[in-house]
Amino acid sequence: MAEDTQSTITYGIFNEAGEHESRVALTPDIVKRLKRSAVDCVIERNAGYAAGFSDDDYIKAGARVVTKDEVIAQSQAFGFVERPDDDLVARLPKGSWVIGMLGSFTDQEYVDRLDKAGLVGVGIEKLPRQLSSAQSMDEMTSQNSVMGYKAVLKAADAYGSFFPMMTTAAGTIRPAKVLILGAGIAGLQAIGTARRLGAVVTAYDVRPAARGEVESLGAKFLELGLDFSKGQGEGGYARQLTAEEQAAQQAAVDKKAAEFDVVITTAKVPGRKPPMLLTKAGVDGLHRGAVIVDCAASDLGGNVEGSKPNQTVVTDNGVQLIGAPDLASGVATTASNLLARNVADVLAHFVNDGRLAMDLTEELDNALIVAGRVEAPAPAAEEEEK
Amino acid sequence: MAEDTQSTITYGIFNEAGEHESRVALTPDIVKRLKRSAVDCVIERNAGYAAGFSDDDYIKAGARVVTKDEVIAQSQAFGFVERPDDDLVARLPKGSWVIGMLGSFTDQEYVDRLDKAGLVGVGIEKLPRQLSSAQSMDEMTSQNSVMGYKAVLKAADAYGSFFPMMTTAAGTIRPAKVLILGAGIAGLQAIGTARRLGAVVTAYDVRPAARGEVESLGAKFLELGLDFSKGQGEGGYARQLTAEEQAAQQAAVDKKAAEFDVVITTAKVPGRKPPMLLTKAGVDGLHRGAVIVDCAASDLGGNVEGSKPNQTVVTDNGVQLIGAPDLASGVATTASNLLARNVADVLAHFVNDGRLAMDLTEELDNALIVAGRVEAPAPAAEEEEK
Repeated sequence: MAEDTQSTITYGIFNEAGEHESRVALTPDIVKRLKRSAVDCVIERNAGYAAGFSDDDYIKAGARVVTKDEVIAQSQAFGFVERPDDDLVARLPKGSWVIGMLGSFTDQEYVDRLDKAGLVGVGIEKLPRQLSSAQSMDEMTSQNSVMGYKAVLKAADAYGSFFPMMTTAAGTIRPAKVLILGAGIAGLQAIGTARRLGAVVTAYDVRPAARGEVESLGAKFLELGLDFSKGQGEGGYARQLTAEEQAAQQAAVDKKAAEFDVVITTAKVPGRKPPMLLTKAGVDGLHRGAVIVDCAASDLGGNVEGSKPNQTVVTDNGVQLIGAPDLASGVATTASNLLARNVADVLAHFVNDGRLAMDLTEELDNALIVAGRVEAPAPAAEEEEK
Repeated sequence: MAEDTQSTITYGIFNEAGEHESRVALTPDIVKRLKRSAVDCVIERNAGYAAGFSDDDYIKAGARVVTKDEVIAQSQAFGFVERPDDDLVARLPKGSWVIGMLGSFTDQEYVDRLDKAGLVGVGIEKLPRQLSSAQSMDEMTSQNSVMGYKAVLKAADAYGSFFPMMTTAAGTIRPAKVLILGAGIAGLQAIGTARRLGAVVTAYDVRPAARGEVESLGAKFLELGLDFSKGQGEGGYARQLTAEEQAAQQAAVDKKAAEFDVVITTAKVPGRKPPMLLTKAGVDGLHRGAVIVDCAASDLGGNVEGSKPNQTVVTDNGVQLIGAPDLASGVATTASNLLARNVADVLAHFVNDGRLAMDLTEELDNALIVAGRVEAPAPAAEEEEK
């Protein structure tokens, strides 16, 4: 209740559930957690339904469940799984804070619109992940981890044979050979999950540091006989390769992929067209019954040539090519719990004495605030309190 | 080629692929294997397609790929995933052998029709599983094992949270609590697979011997505080409980189920209406987001009240109830490889000097032959050679 004599922030959450989105930016556990930071929560009706949380669950946790208009009218800060669309941006109260994956790396126009609308934009994509204080805010890590887990379940469910080895009276079934391309957070989680299920796992990543991480999880590192040293880019993500390097990598991966039953590609580069890791030649080399899960499938293309977002393409040679860009949403309860904690911790970081305030001399603040930047501390919060 | 001077058997396989069936009773590996037993294989076009085998794969292995009419005309023995329908029974040549799950325990009329049609019926459901020579013929075991594996994948894919425990910067995710009802072959495989994925697994079976098996796999045995001693029935399957015992078991299981996130029921009793293990009261007690996979779902009912075969019902309290009677078919390549070996080993058992012959004084023969029984050895094979 923003009108209390005691200063508190009201945090508003909308129903983002769409065709491919089941997550919600706030879960009942986090409602309780935010209470301790003097933050009250209001949430749009049914916002958590697809993630497994009823309106009652939120009410019991201490949130108010209201209409979309009421969320807009009553909140000074808003949390998102992704980001508000332009219509909603136009309706949010001036001076309020918008926290989410705002896409500031690639969509400056959007950020400018937030700025013009008088909103404070907190772009989690800009999180300085190396700071230990930032780790519980790391939505990219938490959601990619969920994605990696789900990618393996999708692959195992689509694959016509067993993942584990099995010795039976009617013969021995050899374990599935799984190739993970991209050994970031999602790839490492996929390695762990595929190994849990008993598959023989090989992985590849352009970053030289990935070899040790892959091997420490008990997987083999794919030997391409190529050198892409200095492959690590800014913020721990893979840098983009040169065209020549990409071609050499593609050819080598395409050739090696033929040995595998299942290929999972996880090389999303935030806000950019994903790198092509497996071309048609690679797909054509796979055996009938092989399964590919492309986590980077998008309308701009994916890691695998011919993948379509949210579709399964069966190729002429009998390979299932699954375009799965929204896998985190497919484990909606866990993904939402983690994401809600990430976003809430970002919010809590900016709450001081029941007010929202930024201090751009601080590394975290300076990185995260992408719109509505104010050099002197806390005026945005001042404005909200009237 | 049945007309060769050297005696050989021709083994015919049809395309059984239907809406819920992707398996095939013969795979390329088994074509080669049967060659060594003087058995030639003919297979209907596209019969293996849904299981991941092309016509070319069969041809390379040494089979002939022909039309359905040609399979009928050229074969002296026929192998099935299930059994031929009445139309096909009427068309099969007199004296030929039909090997499959013929349903002789419950459908004597069908067996009588085979008999009247002059066919030899080999009912794998009658396999004396305790004989070591029978183990590689045990289709029930191989297919139930596949079913148990797939049931866990289905459940994990439908469940909105992680199966494994996960400790992240944004908090710890507790592992899923999985309850397996029915600890036969399918149940034990489900226990193993759910544990591989990191779930905390509890299981229950009416047979007292099941406790040791469940615990040896690292799962807990569900304590109901009830005694159903002498629960083991004929052939190692669960016997049917009395109405009173069933009611007591149901009530206890219903109550206990509320503690779990995922329930998988595997209590199929061959050819009979499956026992009810979880009533509406039990389903209603589960939390929102819980998942049930009922492997026994059928038009006659399943192990779970309200389950529908090949449908997912979302209950009023937000529980996903998945009726999944055809899970083995969902891992069609592995299931077919195992099944094809089972059926082929049954066939090979009856092949002697390039002829099909039965000896009803032998335990295996006496058990398996349900139609066309001839006391003197081998006349059926004589007839086929003309």
